[in-house]
Amino acid sequence: MTDLTTVETYLTNHLEESIAELSLLVAQPSVAAQNWGLQECAALVGQMLTKRSFSVEIIPTDGAPVVFAERKGKTDKTLLFYNHYDVQPAEPLELWETPPFEPALREGKLYGRGVSDDKGHLTARLHAIDAILAADGELPCNIKFIIEGEEETSSLHLHGFIQQNKEKLSAEACIWEFGGVDEREIPMQYLGLRGICYVELSAETANSDVHSGLGGSIFPNAAWRLTWALATLKGPDERILIPGWYDDILPPTPRDRELMSALPDPAWEYKSRYGVEHFLKGLTGGVELTMAEVFEPTCTICGLTSGYQGPGSKTVLPAQASAKVDFRLALGQSPEKCLLLLRSHLDEQGFKDIKITFLGGEPAARTDPDDPFIKIVVESAEEIYEAKMEIVPMVGGSGPNHPFVHELGLPVATAGLGYPDTRAHAPNENIRLDLYLKHARHMARVIYLFSNPPL
Amino acid sequence: MTDLTTVETYLTNHLEESIAELSLLVAQPSVAAQNWGLQECAALVGQMLTKRSFSVEIIPTDGAPVVFAERKGKTDKTLLFYNHYDVQPAEPLELWETPPFEPALREGKLYGRGVSDDKGHLTARLHAIDAILAADGELPCNIKFIIEGEEETSSLHLHGFIQQNKEKLSAEACIWEFGGVDEREIPMQYLGLRGICYVELSAETANSDVHSGLGGSIFPNAAWRLTWALATLKGPDERILIPGWYDDILPPTPRDRELMSALPDPAWEYKSRYGVEHFLKGLTGGVELTMAEVFEPTCTICGLTSGYQGPGSKTVLPAQASAKVDFRLALGQSPEKCLLLLRSHLDEQGFKDIKITFLGGEPAARTDPDDPFIKIVVESAEEIYEAKMEIVPMVGGSGPNHPFVHELGLPVATAGLGYPDTRAHAPNENIRLDLYLKHARHMARVIYLFSNPPL
Repeated sequence: MTDLTTVETYLTNHLEESIAELSLLVAQPSVAAQNWGLQECAALVGQMLTKRSFSVEIIPTDGAPVVFAERKGKTDKTLLFYNHYDVQPAEPLELWETPPFEPALREGKLYGRGVSDDKGHLTARLHAIDAILAADGELPCNIKFIIEGEEETSSLHLHGFIQQNKEKLSAEACIWEFGGVDEREIPMQYLGLRGICYVELSAETANSDVHSGLGGSIFPNAAWRLTWALATLKGPDERILIPGWYDDILPPTPRDRELMSALPDPAWEYKSRYGVEHFLKGLTGGVELTMAEVFEPTCTICGLTSGYQGPGSKTVLPAQASAKVDFRLALGQSPEKCLLLLRSHLDEQGFKDIKITFLGGEPAARTDPDDPFIKIVVESAEEIYEAKMEIVPMVGGSGPNHPFVHELGLPVATAGLGYPDTRAHAPNENIRLDLYLKHARHMARVIYLFSNPPL
Repeated sequence: MTDLTTVETYLTNHLEESIAELSLLVAQPSVAAQNWGLQECAALVGQMLTKRSFSVEIIPTDGAPVVFAERKGKTDKTLLFYNHYDVQPAEPLELWETPPFEPALREGKLYGRGVSDDKGHLTARLHAIDAILAADGELPCNIKFIIEGEEETSSLHLHGFIQQNKEKLSAEACIWEFGGVDEREIPMQYLGLRGICYVELSAETANSDVHSGLGGSIFPNAAWRLTWALATLKGPDERILIPGWYDDILPPTPRDRELMSALPDPAWEYKSRYGVEHFLKGLTGGVELTMAEVFEPTCTICGLTSGYQGPGSKTVLPAQASAKVDFRLALGQSPEKCLLLLRSHLDEQGFKDIKITFLGGEPAARTDPDDPFIKIVVESAEEIYEAKMEIVPMVGGSGPNHPFVHELGLPVATAGLGYPDTRAHAPNENIRLDLYLKHARHMARVIYLFSNPPL
């Protein structure tokens, strides 16, 4: 194994160059939800990998292209990195201190949309590869990248892509797109992701809006149809009312509870950060709160749109209304079956008129905490972060880990530069440069240890 | 009585000038809901009346100013015209064939926001006054105008203004701001207006939006709070569920039913015009449909706003949500009491967190169909429209007729240039020039007949 000091010195001395490369990448907008800049961003990512002598393919899908890249190494082993080049919409723009697509450095932090989720992860990993190549002239193992452009819109075409490219993507282990430290600066190992089924529900009741004085008593109203349909999905007790919804759920195991119990209580932090007065279902904190947060299915209204939304009053009866609804799925649930259950339920409840548009989904999946690769990732973090990595068996967010775990058969480990105030999906998304460097250092160690594991 | 031929010749010969004056007025935006151009429009209206030797006062209120104007006439009798200079928002702008505030003449119609509701009514009435002054050099009676700037936002300050200015506004009869012909070209006499109570309901559950993967299971969601609260107000059977809501309602009389039965069945026209497949409550048409349309109270969602509303998906848990809700009130209901009932109901149902913002209201009111002034307005229309004016005891729309009827004690008659495709409150609002001229002719006759009624 190469002397790590050389690699680490490189990482420190060339940090500025890597941040410059990240800034270039962030300055290229790539908003999947708005189909903005995706081709351009894929091309830019491809160039960044070509520059490192990876063989690069930019592969079209029915959505955004996938960037696949591969470079052979000294051993036969293959490590697969999963990243994404798309970002969340930057709205509401007025809440950004500096423009979202003009990366800005302030007090040791880089601000911009996608700087954390997920462009910073990609460039930090490239930075680690640069350091290894500078030290050794070659990679200690084969490295593959799969970098998609639809992660923020539920990776609509990734599952099919993986099924069709199993050979190309074959590897022994996978590093996931994200990871990071918690408020105590402890690095976290997130091993599972909830599933998701994201839909738009919409109603259309006439060919144009009608004066509410005319139609109020006698014309159907799209906003009312939508409101009533939504109210059949979930009541204030938070129980999802769609028949069969909970049937296939695999409950958390005693090991899950044990691992979750070892984690800190987030109650106080959540309340102060978000200004939330109380949690749902009478939860107050501790393991009951964290178990509910990640193991239970959800039904979240993410957005509502209908009729007049400006200042003051307008007396209009809306012809159209729609809601974005995000169902998070527990282990065992499938988005396809959930869609069927949702349709049947709406029909049964008298809402055949409510249209369902599927905007993406993925089942939940997770990796065994006792997998040897997880051990490598966990142990190689300790010296860098000066703390033992803590294992989180499941998180509340979603991502397309299911085909990596179940189609490619890979252990999937998380590692990253995130921290509690990174503001992914929110205005003023940012990364800390110290954590960026630590992530690059961590990745270099993981690549070496994975290639030549201790006997 | 002056020879009407002179007056009518004037009206025909000077029509173009009057339309030019109307175009000038429409080109001045005056959107009450957006507080846009109201002062400027009030000043312009004031100038138009000063030019006709009216004494004009532009009187501030806590909202938009009221234009009051008066000119003495030959007799002691006083006729009061009620108009408004404000207009509805022009959105959605992309559906206009020509810009809403650039009046455009096409095929005998003038297009523009407010051309029908209500600026055309005002200038047509001024045109009638010009013709009388040209023929006689004086008015046959005192004429007063009260022209407000908040009609499209529920006339929030008019009721108080009228209470404080009873002396100034004293008269024997009032001509209302609108009126017109139906699809058969029959002029209609609308004698009553439903009341209204317009509110915004809003929820706020956190200080910022949260990633739905994090908060979905444990954080309150403003969009859900709003949805559940709305669903307690009315169910799919259209019955308003707020306790006490129907208690004070005065049911329609046999005379109402008799007058309503004489009106044509609007069912086919409504279905084809708005692309509506069926009416609510199993209604199919005829007098049952028209009675429901105008005599029943309503609860209409006019708009919904929350979270992400753009294309595709965004996984966000909204911290804020709001709905515009328009309650139309039947005779006997008061907006003040309805607000109290709404607050109590939401509290009882567990929605103390839902904020109610009152955006305006007025009780229902109507004039006796057998009032002598109504007879004058109805009879003077017959020769002009070559059809007998039909009496409609109540319409579904609202307006501030209550203080005119109950504070000033006036019979209120409607007359106007409206027609079924006038598109008030919608894109491509327009008037027909032939009906504009007829309305001016009708108004000239009403002024003469009111001043010197037949013995």
